[in-house]
Amino acid sequence: MKIAMFLIDNDAESLSFSSSDLDRLCLALPTAEIEQYESESAFRNHGAGADIALTWHFETSWYEGFPQLKTIYTPAAGRDWVAPDPNGNVNVVHGTFHGPILAESLLGALLFMNHRMPAMIQNHRNREWDRNLQTGTRLLAEQTVLIIGLGHIGNYCADMLAPLVKKIVGVRRTSIDATTYTVNDLPQLLPDADHVVMLLPGTDETDRFMNAERLSLMKEGSFIYNFGRGNSLVAQDLLPVMTHLGGAFLDVTEEEPLPRTSLLWEHEKIFITPHSSCMYADYTSRYLDEVIQHLTRS
Amino acid sequence: MKIAMFLIDNDAESLSFSSSDLDRLCLALPTAEIEQYESESAFRNHGAGADIALTWHFETSWYEGFPQLKTIYTPAAGRDWVAPDPNGNVNVVHGTFHGPILAESLLGALLFMNHRMPAMIQNHRNREWDRNLQTGTRLLAEQTVLIIGLGHIGNYCADMLAPLVKKIVGVRRTSIDATTYTVNDLPQLLPDADHVVMLLPGTDETDRFMNAERLSLMKEGSFIYNFGRGNSLVAQDLLPVMTHLGGAFLDVTEEEPLPRTSLLWEHEKIFITPHSSCMYADYTSRYLDEVIQHLTRS
Repeated sequence: MKIAMFLIDNDAESLSFSSSDLDRLCLALPTAEIEQYESESAFRNHGAGADIALTWHFETSWYEGFPQLKTIYTPAAGRDWVAPDPNGNVNVVHGTFHGPILAESLLGALLFMNHRMPAMIQNHRNREWDRNLQTGTRLLAEQTVLIIGLGHIGNYCADMLAPLVKKIVGVRRTSIDATTYTVNDLPQLLPDADHVVMLLPGTDETDRFMNAERLSLMKEGSFIYNFGRGNSLVAQDLLPVMTHLGGAFLDVTEEEPLPRTSLLWEHEKIFITPHSSCMYADYTSRYLDEVIQHLTRS
Repeated sequence: MKIAMFLIDNDAESLSFSSSDLDRLCLALPTAEIEQYESESAFRNHGAGADIALTWHFETSWYEGFPQLKTIYTPAAGRDWVAPDPNGNVNVVHGTFHGPILAESLLGALLFMNHRMPAMIQNHRNREWDRNLQTGTRLLAEQTVLIIGLGHIGNYCADMLAPLVKKIVGVRRTSIDATTYTVNDLPQLLPDADHVVMLLPGTDETDRFMNAERLSLMKEGSFIYNFGRGNSLVAQDLLPVMTHLGGAFLDVTEEEPLPRTSLLWEHEKIFITPHSSCMYADYTSRYLDEVIQHLTRS
């Protein structure tokens, strides 16, 4: 069995394999021939005989160069970066380990906004001891969180948040039983939510999902979070409703990196993180847990 | 029954009674004569016949002016602001509702520091899309939290955090059973904790509790939090160990308000909030829940 690895994210160390990750894989799979490549061209030129590829990225045209390939393991939860095999011979296995990682980032963001940290940061920078910035803060335990996009990660987040909030409401694309909410229920759900969490994947269907009309339905003083993909929230529709909203925490944006000229950066109620909700030291080892389990279970 | 109320905190709206709080108290106690005073002098001059006082503050010398007084209800959890009656006739009832409030603030602070938010804030201010600031972040679920001061609030925090972290260790002043840790165990506990949470009251005994010697025992890259009282953490001992620590989140400081000239303000790994861990809209109504329950249960 030959394994070709191309797991470099030039932007993010914590999404790239370290030598200890490679050592661990070699120990777990002692009979496998494992090669790690540092560039796309090395991966495509020298990885050609691989049965298995571990990669962030695989394009449709690459498949013909990998005639032995049976399985691609990608850490990504999103379907954005590995194209499906046009001949249907290659199985693509996506990571399913993101729940605990993303749930902590989301919980941190909820408490950050609930505690008015964008204003508290200003206060801190100005060395001001103003004890009234958080006067309006209500206990999370008395608030409703609406999660839009209740897949694997969304369900994990809902389970972690459930004991900490008054009510969790999840919206799925399609109803699975009579008690599930769908997109059609949003006009009723948005006005009741104190925190609206977007966890939508980046597809044509989710493009511009949260637009002016839906944003205008949100409750006065409520907060919006995007931890899914940037295409689903229209920034130019968000800015006008910020007078009405309590704030926005955006981990993803329509264009990434967010251009330095974007007005989002300078809005006092908006906080932006650089698509970093999964930037944890544990990321690649959690991914390896899954790959090794999958490859050694047969 | 005459109730005299002096519940103004000039620094903090959310710690002061509103007219709706007064209305609620009047409804719950229809036969009581309830007066709210806007100043200390009005409270002391006109509240003299009160059986019950609701107040943040009561000094030893005030007792002789309140000969009928039987009970003082104070929202404070700390013993700092209401002196005991020298004649021992007046019962002082402290609020015990702070657990859910402080636990949310503490959890927010833990996630804030764990996610390297002081550095992320700098990043945001500079409009930089740097995805490597959080590379060292480990899941809270894999970390140990040490709580120093395991009273009512500390126990509530421990219960809320328990499902979210790997291990909670609590330290009390005195051992209640063989499994309880005390201050004597700190030399063993401090080097193992990823997050050290101080929840000590402001007494002579806690003065300068966390000093250079104890701080130096903390684990490389670990975080310290003070949500108790400022006297227990020596700022001039904290600054030299900041090269070793991951960061500090201080909600209380030795002098409050923290002087603008303090070096704590400008340290890149220190974040300061203005003794605001209980600044929630729900504060006075949670306090009233307890007062009303206490006064109507007989």
